[in-house]
Amino acid sequence: MMTSTIESLGDCRFYSRLPHMCCKGAGFKTDSDHIACDDKVNREFGSDAAQRDGLSFEVAGPREHIYYDSANTTAAIVTCGGLCPGVNDVIRGLVMELWHGYGVTDILGIRYGYDGLVLRHGHQPLPLSPEVVSNIQTFGGTMLGTSRGPQSVPEMVDALEQLGIDILFVIGGDGTLKGGAAIVEEIHRRGLRKSVIGIPKTIDNDIMYLDKSFGFETAFAEAVKAVSCAHVEAICAINGIGLVKLMGRASGFIGCYAVLASQQVNFCLIPEVPFELDGSRGFLEALRYRIARRKHAVIVVAEGAGQELLETKPTETDASGNRRLGDIGLFLKREISHFFHSCNIPITLKYIDPSYAIRSVPASPQDNVYCSILAKNAVHAGMAGKTNMLVGRWHDTFVHIPLRIVISDRRRIDPRGDVWRSVLEATGQPRNMSAAA
Amino acid sequence: MMTSTIESLGDCRFYSRLPHMCCKGAGFKTDSDHIACDDKVNREFGSDAAQRDGLSFEVAGPREHIYYDSANTTAAIVTCGGLCPGVNDVIRGLVMELWHGYGVTDILGIRYGYDGLVLRHGHQPLPLSPEVVSNIQTFGGTMLGTSRGPQSVPEMVDALEQLGIDILFVIGGDGTLKGGAAIVEEIHRRGLRKSVIGIPKTIDNDIMYLDKSFGFETAFAEAVKAVSCAHVEAICAINGIGLVKLMGRASGFIGCYAVLASQQVNFCLIPEVPFELDGSRGFLEALRYRIARRKHAVIVVAEGAGQELLETKPTETDASGNRRLGDIGLFLKREISHFFHSCNIPITLKYIDPSYAIRSVPASPQDNVYCSILAKNAVHAGMAGKTNMLVGRWHDTFVHIPLRIVISDRRRIDPRGDVWRSVLEATGQPRNMSAAA
Amino acid sequence: MMTSTIESLGDCRFYSRLPHMCCKGAGFKTDSDHIACDDKVNREFGSDAAQRDGLSFEVAGPREHIYYDSANTTAAIVTCGGLCPGVNDVIRGLVMELWHGYGVTDILGIRYGYDGLVLRHGHQPLPLSPEVVSNIQTFGGTMLGTSRGPQSVPEMVDALEQLGIDILFVIGGDGTLKGGAAIVEEIHRRGLRKSVIGIPKTIDNDIMYLDKSFGFETAFAEAVKAVSCAHVEAICAINGIGLVKLMGRASGFIGCYAVLASQQVNFCLIPEVPFELDGSRGFLEALRYRIARRKHAVIVVAEGAGQELLETKPTETDASGNRRLGDIGLFLKREISHFFHSCNIPITLKYIDPSYAIRSVPASPQDNVYCSILAKNAVHAGMAGKTNMLVGRWHDTFVHIPLRIVISDRRRIDPRGDVWRSVLEATGQPRNMSAAA
Amino acid sequence: MMTSTIESLGDCRFYSRLPHMCCKGAGFKTDSDHIACDDKVNREFGSDAAQRDGLSFEVAGPREHIYYDSANTTAAIVTCGGLCPGVNDVIRGLVMELWHGYGVTDILGIRYGYDGLVLRHGHQPLPLSPEVVSNIQTFGGTMLGTSRGPQSVPEMVDALEQLGIDILFVIGGDGTLKGGAAIVEEIHRRGLRKSVIGIPKTIDNDIMYLDKSFGFETAFAEAVKAVSCAHVEAICAINGIGLVKLMGRASGFIGCYAVLASQQVNFCLIPEVPFELDGSRGFLEALRYRIARRKHAVIVVAEGAGQELLETKPTETDASGNRRLGDIGLFLKREISHFFHSCNIPITLKYIDPSYAIRSVPASPQDNVYCSILAKNAVHAGMAGKTNMLVGRWHDTFVHIPLRIVISDRRRIDPRGDVWRSVLEATGQPRNMSAAA
Repeated sequence: MMTSTIESLGDCRFYSRLPHMCCKGAGFKTDSDHIACDDKVNREFGSDAAQRDGLSFEVAGPREHIYYDSANTTAAIVTCGGLCPGVNDVIRGLVMELWHGYGVTDILGIRYGYDGLVLRHGHQPLPLSPEVVSNIQTFGGTMLGTSRGPQSVPEMVDALEQLGIDILFVIGGDGTLKGGAAIVEEIHRRGLRKSVIGIPKTIDNDIMYLDKSFGFETAFAEAVKAVSCAHVEAICAINGIGLVKLMGRASGFIGCYAVLASQQVNFCLIPEVPFELDGSRGFLEALRYRIARRKHAVIVVAEGAGQELLETKPTETDASGNRRLGDIGLFLKREISHFFHSCNIPITLKYIDPSYAIRSVPASPQDNVYCSILAKNAVHAGMAGKTNMLVGRWHDTFVHIPLRIVISDRRRIDPRGDVWRSVLEATGQPRNMSAAA
Repeated sequence: MMTSTIESLGDCRFYSRLPHMCCKGAGFKTDSDHIACDDKVNREFGSDAAQRDGLSFEVAGPREHIYYDSANTTAAIVTCGGLCPGVNDVIRGLVMELWHGYGVTDILGIRYGYDGLVLRHGHQPLPLSPEVVSNIQTFGGTMLGTSRGPQSVPEMVDALEQLGIDILFVIGGDGTLKGGAAIVEEIHRRGLRKSVIGIPKTIDNDIMYLDKSFGFETAFAEAVKAVSCAHVEAICAINGIGLVKLMGRASGFIGCYAVLASQQVNFCLIPEVPFELDGSRGFLEALRYRIARRKHAVIVVAEGAGQELLETKPTETDASGNRRLGDIGLFLKREISHFFHSCNIPITLKYIDPSYAIRSVPASPQDNVYCSILAKNAVHAGMAGKTNMLVGRWHDTFVHIPLRIVISDRRRIDPRGDVWRSVLEATGQPRNMSAAA
Repeated sequence: MMTSTIESLGDCRFYSRLPHMCCKGAGFKTDSDHIACDDKVNREFGSDAAQRDGLSFEVAGPREHIYYDSANTTAAIVTCGGLCPGVNDVIRGLVMELWHGYGVTDILGIRYGYDGLVLRHGHQPLPLSPEVVSNIQTFGGTMLGTSRGPQSVPEMVDALEQLGIDILFVIGGDGTLKGGAAIVEEIHRRGLRKSVIGIPKTIDNDIMYLDKSFGFETAFAEAVKAVSCAHVEAICAINGIGLVKLMGRASGFIGCYAVLASQQVNFCLIPEVPFELDGSRGFLEALRYRIARRKHAVIVVAEGAGQELLETKPTETDASGNRRLGDIGLFLKREISHFFHSCNIPITLKYIDPSYAIRSVPASPQDNVYCSILAKNAVHAGMAGKTNMLVGRWHDTFVHIPLRIVISDRRRIDPRGDVWRSVLEATGQPRNMSAAA
Repeated sequence: MMTSTIESLGDCRFYSRLPHMCCKGAGFKTDSDHIACDDKVNREFGSDAAQRDGLSFEVAGPREHIYYDSANTTAAIVTCGGLCPGVNDVIRGLVMELWHGYGVTDILGIRYGYDGLVLRHGHQPLPLSPEVVSNIQTFGGTMLGTSRGPQSVPEMVDALEQLGIDILFVIGGDGTLKGGAAIVEEIHRRGLRKSVIGIPKTIDNDIMYLDKSFGFETAFAEAVKAVSCAHVEAICAINGIGLVKLMGRASGFIGCYAVLASQQVNFCLIPEVPFELDGSRGFLEALRYRIARRKHAVIVVAEGAGQELLETKPTETDASGNRRLGDIGLFLKREISHFFHSCNIPITLKYIDPSYAIRSVPASPQDNVYCSILAKNAVHAGMAGKTNMLVGRWHDTFVHIPLRIVISDRRRIDPRGDVWRSVLEATGQPRNMSAAA
């Protein structure tokens, strides 16, 4: 268990010198306000010493003193990686808080991810104002465009210098945040005074120390629609099988939540729980039994599930540096067809891959609210001179989390926890479809 | 701050004696697993002694040993009070977990709230099974029906005896849970061995020690639609004013979240923040200024807001024992019309009261999941022999909370907290529209 | 039956002199292309002479020759009366076709209905271009604003002259179109060369010689949601009654279609079918019987139904010149409550008036398409020098209809037709709840 | 042009002998009530002789006398072919009208299409009643299941005899209706007295002499969502291209209407309008030009478009006897990628195939109403002793159409008509991307 706190990152906070101007009715937060990372208590031993010295997170919110002079501050926003519901909400929230909350009117929208920070690529930054962003939350995607993959860190910091950017808000996932940390390092190396604030984006909901990532709730609500389609297709055919591939490279959150919301799924396959295809306890035999008994089945598979069953070279990566996954959806489609053909059982298999439909919708009201508060807190942090951190929500409180902690690992479904147990009960699938488990 | 813990309610837990049969893949929880109620840490003083001895909650989940013998157990479910999205999801979850998780097949649905527990009223209980509840989550309301108001506690316990009910699941709000506590008392007085497990229902999201109450997210998402209508009406007329009354008797959660999600509201009036109508700093003058400058305005008012402005007898109560509120919506409609008439400013005022539309919709996917897990944990608690408690989620963990703690107070919007500050920034309304504030 | 055709309005078509520039791939229509108004045939008599000489409508579409010189033409759009889904779609379609289809770039958006055509009221017209209207169809209402009521016709024609408007597109209902006809007359009186093209808007779907009016399908789809809420409220209470008031001043289309789509309504009351409250065959007795038998009931009442039961002065009118209706919804709410109270039967009555929610939503995809084609045809007509007419769809073909024919009467539900028979079957209500019927 | 009328099919109507019992408030229709198929009039020639003798359709509706004795009649319903929104609505409407309208209580649901009419396959028919079908319209698909492909006609008529079925309602497309016609022939050959009534189902909206087919409006509304996703994906990437494959084997209705509703598509490719890939006027060059100018593009392609570009054997057919199409979507995806690669232009291409999501949703309110009235009219026809016909809506009137006429050809988008012209204007695509055109 980690014992360091954000306090030890003292070097990444600048000297605050400006009175806060305009934060209405605010109970200011101080940097001494923390919440415990781990709130578990074991009453048996009459003590909770372990907790006392544990990791804690700085509570987010407006500070009484701010670091940057609003009149002379330039902020910039960059959105990277795959689409995710809510990015436009975050952009809108950042611009609104910078403009109305702090009087910062020099706000640049960097186009097409980190690509737009490499000036020789020629993507002109877009000046942002309340008028420009006023309605963007009604549309999916990101009004700034996005791209995958890293760019030259020195070139990006050159751009920050040439464009006079003081605070860079980076909206992106794992790879993007690592890029953000590298930018921070280069800024420090050059002795510059610039902040980098991360706003974690992952539709997979797999960022450590976050209750949830924005867009996740919208996403699994969309996934439920795909599951319903698969269910309808399955029950309307003789031995109908609906197979839905959902997001989830390393974590099965979208799959599990779609199962729990729809209550129509019979098998849920996720990266955290290995399974085997063959053998009397394998997935195919379980599916055969289900079809024999109920004449239809719905299967949800996360894209990262069952990778060990595929024969891909594990070293291949995509532009974002993510390991390129084999396509478990098409693989299962093929294997299921072959299996039932070999059993001489006619089936009707429909394969649905709704990924683009899920990730490109506008955020739901829940995510509207979450993104809006998240963005405000990112601005509070940036204006207070924080850097090398991201904003997140932990145990229902918005907090500051050091970048290096977050990108050290991923959040996963606990195969012994509430969620997975509920999934098993909802699907009725065997608890164990692997000799290894 | 309270210092007691659920441990002190030891008398309400029965002797466990049955091995748990069927909880798949479960990491069992023990009654020693707790989470701290307050996770705040002040790093300045290098100590968090206050927290160490603080209130903590038993973690919910399946227990290794259970109290009731599934084969001879009769469970019953009763739903009381106003409609709220998700009640059918909870009913479904209870039945599914009882039936499939524990093998309890004697499950009675009590009709029309506590009314159905007074046998001489003649409402026949409905036998529940997985088949009966299989699709009910696709419909709003409660398949069991509901009613308001208390009933004779001895008569209700008579019914529990006559129907042979061992575990009663009570889904309802403040008044209902008080009724549940009274039933527990009567059960103890008679020396019976019956459990009462509460599942808190309040569309207002105002139950203490709960991250959120089920249905709330669905509800404010519906409220956003009403706000959008009001916005469209307002901008399409000369000096158009859209006035929306939302739920929120004692707490303005629905109003505040609808404001944050829609970003289209100019005034948000909630019970927690008093305001005055008249005077140069009053609401009407602020509205006049807004109309003069922008030609339209959208107002959200929680039903419990501004009660001090109404001349009602505070002692009047409705069938549920709730104080009968004056209708602030119609009051404001009238006052605004008079005011602008007296100012000789023509306005077009549209008044929208979407309450029934909000409360009767089916639960959103987020609430589907929440209700499902909540219900499962209620069953785990009931089967383990717990009583006089409710299940809830606190700091992202499902917990057991003693009934008496929950009904002692209400959760409210903190006028100095994140949410209200975000609302003020979103509306641009004056921070203070009251001499008192 | 009318026998005149649009041909006899020859004086309202100007001399065409410009070759059509840009209508892609068009099969041009000529003014000789008509469709028969009445396509009924009685095979028994072996002849259909009646039809041959019957009313027919000019088919809409681009003409080979156009009247106005695009480079020197100014078009204007005005939207009047109550909100209706699809108005923004029509505005968008007009601008897009004028700009891209004909090269007309002088397009004025008149603000707030006919009010904006009275220049001394000071509403500046809004210049419209593809960029301005590009996304407006995603929002409800009208981006131009609207108002009710007539204005001085000479003043409005003064405005047309001063603003140099050649073609005025008028989007509105009955009263608005009558205003349009008056403007045409004044234009002719002054010997001006200006076109007025009507685009009929009525959420009630009650315009003569139109298959459907735009927005109607969106509207009744919204109404279905309100009916569902009422149904949920009704079934969840003991003797629950849900009462929904829907639009429909003179015609019960929205009510009837909401009944047919929802299949959850037990009584549908519309203006075309009188009913009585009292007596053994009256509505209240029928309702009592339904409640006794089924314990709940859902009632849909069109706002214009049962007016003969209300004691209002029939000469009162609103700003648009519409007869002011008594509020049948509140009246029924009161009467039903009294009746059951007098019968000593406890009921729970929920009254829902969703009108603003229905009329302010964005158009559904079906209406998007309909509005878009309707608008294009309005532009084709205007550019071809037509005037004093509206565009509509009759028997699935887009046509030109003379203004004077349309405003002479209203379309109504036929109490002996398909729709009403289906409603009776869906509700199971008595065919006759009136001594008069 | 056809000149025959349904009258000439006199042999397929039985002798009517029963008074109609229960059709409430009905204006009965007689078989002499017809509407003209063609309502076009050319005013230039002062005559419309052609029309007078033209094809006309019997008007649908309840008849004063009916053929079948309700007490001794068995009806059956079979649903065949691909899923389509609204099938459950039709089933519900048939059962409700049979049961409540005519007192027929022997109603069988045939399982899994024509497969279920081959008794040795062992699919037990499902007895249908109002209770069983009461809520099915809230779910997509068909509660009876479906299958593709023909079955032995004699075996199916054997089943009709063995199950005592008097009226068979057949819900299906082209192939299914041909099967229905073959069943009628076999019935006549055997001298039996059984009716076969078709209810045309085609999500492609391509049935001759039908204003629209049920489910079509729901379907293209879903397609709009997929187009929106593609649009978001396209605008968020550098040179982003969104490619959406939609239904439309022989007709591009879904594609065209999705284009018109969304107004976000730049290329629409349909079967009716051939195009070439290569050459200076080909599709790829037009796409390159669009990308160069606007940096993104959205393409909609109907599955039947561009088949001449694919090298498939035209004689291959699927189980329903439909010609197996090459996959134009994947083909275009490949060709576009190759083309831009060869041009050295980086693109981001997202391919979306939403077919299952489109076809499996519940019907929209518009389709709810349409299906409900369609089904009622099917029952009226069946009970009146009609056979060998289908019910449809033509020019806004419900009519009877002889099976043989309908299956003789398909309805198509007219490349010179309103719809295609509007599509060209909405997309801005070249009118001609083919040397052949």
